[in-house]
Amino acid sequence: MKSDIPVTSLQRLPVYLNYLKSLDAEGYISSGAIARALGMGEVLVRKDLAYTSAQGRTRVGYVLEELISALEDYLGCNDKKKAVIVGAGELGNALLSYGGFSNYGIELVCAFDTDETKIGKTIGGKPVYSVENEKEEIEKLDAHLAVLCVPAKVAQSVADALTECGVNKILNFAPVLLRVKEGVTVRNIDVAANLAILSSM
Amino acid sequence: MKSDIPVTSLQRLPVYLNYLKSLDAEGYISSGAIARALGMGEVLVRKDLAYTSAQGRTRVGYVLEELISALEDYLGCNDKKKAVIVGAGELGNALLSYGGFSNYGIELVCAFDTDETKIGKTIGGKPVYSVENEKEEIEKLDAHLAVLCVPAKVAQSVADALTECGVNKILNFAPVLLRVKEGVTVRNIDVAANLAILSSM
Repeated sequence: MKSDIPVTSLQRLPVYLNYLKSLDAEGYISSGAIARALGMGEVLVRKDLAYTSAQGRTRVGYVLEELISALEDYLGCNDKKKAVIVGAGELGNALLSYGGFSNYGIELVCAFDTDETKIGKTIGGKPVYSVENEKEEIEKLDAHLAVLCVPAKVAQSVADALTECGVNKILNFAPVLLRVKEGVTVRNIDVAANLAILSSM
Repeated sequence: MKSDIPVTSLQRLPVYLNYLKSLDAEGYISSGAIARALGMGEVLVRKDLAYTSAQGRTRVGYVLEELISALEDYLGCNDKKKAVIVGAGELGNALLSYGGFSNYGIELVCAFDTDETKIGKTIGGKPVYSVENEKEEIEKLDAHLAVLCVPAKVAQSVADALTECGVNKILNFAPVLLRVKEGVTVRNIDVAANLAILSSM
């Protein structure tokens, strides 16, 4: 991981970036102003931003444009990265049609599925291939990022197959703990758990 | 929030729960075994579980069944809660068709949309209503949980309307910072940001 940033800090960087971009302004912004707007502590904001190349100035804070650039650089928004989707069901469909990935330099290039009725079609302009061609296509694309939109019961075997193809970063929507070999990173989004967490807050 | 649990701890409870349920076993499990399986520190696991009613015993650990029950109780899996979806686009569709919410006692009861071609239809067996009937329906359902699956540019106004209807917990998929009145809790899932974070790890 870049400069040993804690995951908790890394997770907040897109929040700062979205907020700063939403201001649609120029000039300076202080860590205090960011902290107040986001309901966070100012020290925390300053610490998080210190992982990027942004240089705050005493009393005035950061040049907004520079801070946005520093966050974008840190998050790799300017590095083009290819990602594949496995599982062209409703969630896979929704993601293939969503334009927001390009803000982070990520291009969803294709999907894989086992369903004959989906293979060969395009969704959101992206081709759906058979999982049988997974290795061939992923190696050709040189994609290392994958989004798992498959049912829980097949998630582990799909993850195993993906890592065999050279994928080393998996965003997993299935509510299961994936076991992966060293060097492979998994990030989970369990939507139902998130709603339960919210409900318990 | 229940017993002042930190959000970071609360977020891990569904992870423990999923893991323990996946074991499909009986008998005892120690915090050490859980920690090793999930790649976490044992002290952290013990601290997190101490927020629930589960009682670990020296040397043997927790009775698996009791620990699962304690986590389910804490996460309100046995309290029935109604949630509504706003935005019956592809993501809203995917969520309406997903069965995993019931594990947490959450029932997605209906969706709201502005699109005349969707209103009056059912998705995953759930009716799609016009946003014009939002207040009436939400009050009738006595729903306090909502999932926002709308484009970023309308997310704030949709959130405002929802809180006017008595919704006080919003799961927001739009990549914007929602401003809500006191007593309303927002939790964000920014899928693109998650993929960018994963890519930066």
